[in-house]
Amino acid sequence: MKNKLTIIKVGGGILNERKLFEIFLENYSKIKGLKLLVHGGGVIASNYMIRLGIPVKMNEGRRITDSDTLDVAVMTYAGLINKNIVSTLQKFNCNAIGLCGADANLITSKIREIKEIDYGLVGDILSINDNFINQLLKLKISPIICSLTHNGEGQILNTNADSIASEISIKLSKNYDITLKYCFDKPGILTDKNDNLSFKKTINKTDYKQLIKNKIIYDGMVPKIESCYYALENGVSNIFIGDHNIIKTTENCTKIIL
Amino acid sequence: MKNKLTIIKVGGGILNERKLFEIFLENYSKIKGLKLLVHGGGVIASNYMIRLGIPVKMNEGRRITDSDTLDVAVMTYAGLINKNIVSTLQKFNCNAIGLCGADANLITSKIREIKEIDYGLVGDILSINDNFINQLLKLKISPIICSLTHNGEGQILNTNADSIASEISIKLSKNYDITLKYCFDKPGILTDKNDNLSFKKTINKTDYKQLIKNKIIYDGMVPKIESCYYALENGVSNIFIGDHNIIKTTENCTKIIL
Repeated sequence: MKNKLTIIKVGGGILNERKLFEIFLENYSKIKGLKLLVHGGGVIASNYMIRLGIPVKMNEGRRITDSDTLDVAVMTYAGLINKNIVSTLQKFNCNAIGLCGADANLITSKIREIKEIDYGLVGDILSINDNFINQLLKLKISPIICSLTHNGEGQILNTNADSIASEISIKLSKNYDITLKYCFDKPGILTDKNDNLSFKKTINKTDYKQLIKNKIIYDGMVPKIESCYYALENGVSNIFIGDHNIIKTTENCTKIIL
Repeated sequence: MKNKLTIIKVGGGILNERKLFEIFLENYSKIKGLKLLVHGGGVIASNYMIRLGIPVKMNEGRRITDSDTLDVAVMTYAGLINKNIVSTLQKFNCNAIGLCGADANLITSKIREIKEIDYGLVGDILSINDNFINQLLKLKISPIICSLTHNGEGQILNTNADSIASEISIKLSKNYDITLKYCFDKPGILTDKNDNLSFKKTINKTDYKQLIKNKIIYDGMVPKIESCYYALENGVSNIFIGDHNIIKTTENCTKIIL
């Protein structure tokens, strides 16, 4: 039987509130068994960009990354956010290590092809170094991975954190029984966006298509759920989407099922 | 016989010039055998502080670190500088991993006692986790360590990079034959500060005391050389001080001897 591994993806919103940040990480430290965290930090990066006078450019919720924007992403994701997560987890007696995709050649990517939009220094994932992650997990060190990858030629690339979470989950599902949890600012997939109690308990693929048709799932949620199905079809055992409480319990959130 | 390990400490000046940065790291990647890099990045941190409107406060060359200053130190040392070093080394086929003292509980410290000066969020080293460094070296991954530590209670602390380099060298000298090289902006200890050719080939402890008396060694160089003698007296085999060329050759630099 495979060892259980819990993979959590957390968004920038939770990380930007000091109190929620502490509660979230205390709960993370209490997860039994092996665990791995993937994080972004877009809100914090945007705040620093504004302070530095660097224009924030987005297209359909995805960041257009020029060289100055990348520097701020590297500073905030791999620096400020990642190291504050790690030092806070150490306080909660959870031995953790902060990494970007360049560290130990963890995640290589290639620059996104220019189609309608030039996203700039954004990378699509090519490979995951699961050997090194296995070594860390064996040493009982929890990897804390930020949403940056590299192309192997000295270029760091901004990479979608949801994609990193699903690709790592798929790769590690060879050796582990994976539960993947996406934490964001809603308790799950809502049928009425103004009612937090209207979350669906489960969504199968037929439901999903219907929810897109009814415009209940739209924008950034579409690629998120797509990547969930991709992960479920490629070896990941369980996927949940919800707010920060899903670390403790999966009773009040949405389970994505085939 | 112990394995050889080369430990390099590099200052912010070299890291702040793109061309020198590449040459330095290409030479680092060519060091035969095991290697570890310790870096600061004060110049780059100060530049960002000015851009963010945060006052830069120094006392005798040492930074006074309030909470905003620490954030910038974390962003630049552990983020921008550290990850650009790592991704550049990957280009040169040197597998590297970027770490601060909180990662894998690598370096714990305690906040510096307030005497004449309150340095703020500055940490003096308490312990080095050599087990984890050994694991990385066994995996042929070069640790790239920035000048930040943590107190185990969730607080990251700014820590002198020279001290980190000497303390790590001493700790690892149990298991390795250590050569420690300090790279800065001069070819060595100069007897005439305006003449780069006036570097002394060797300095023993008697020379050192005489050079302080003659005010040839002063300010920040005093604790640097003090920590060299401390390291030599505690197991480190060789220590050199010079410019970026000392990675390739130790012919034109200063060797510190007992």
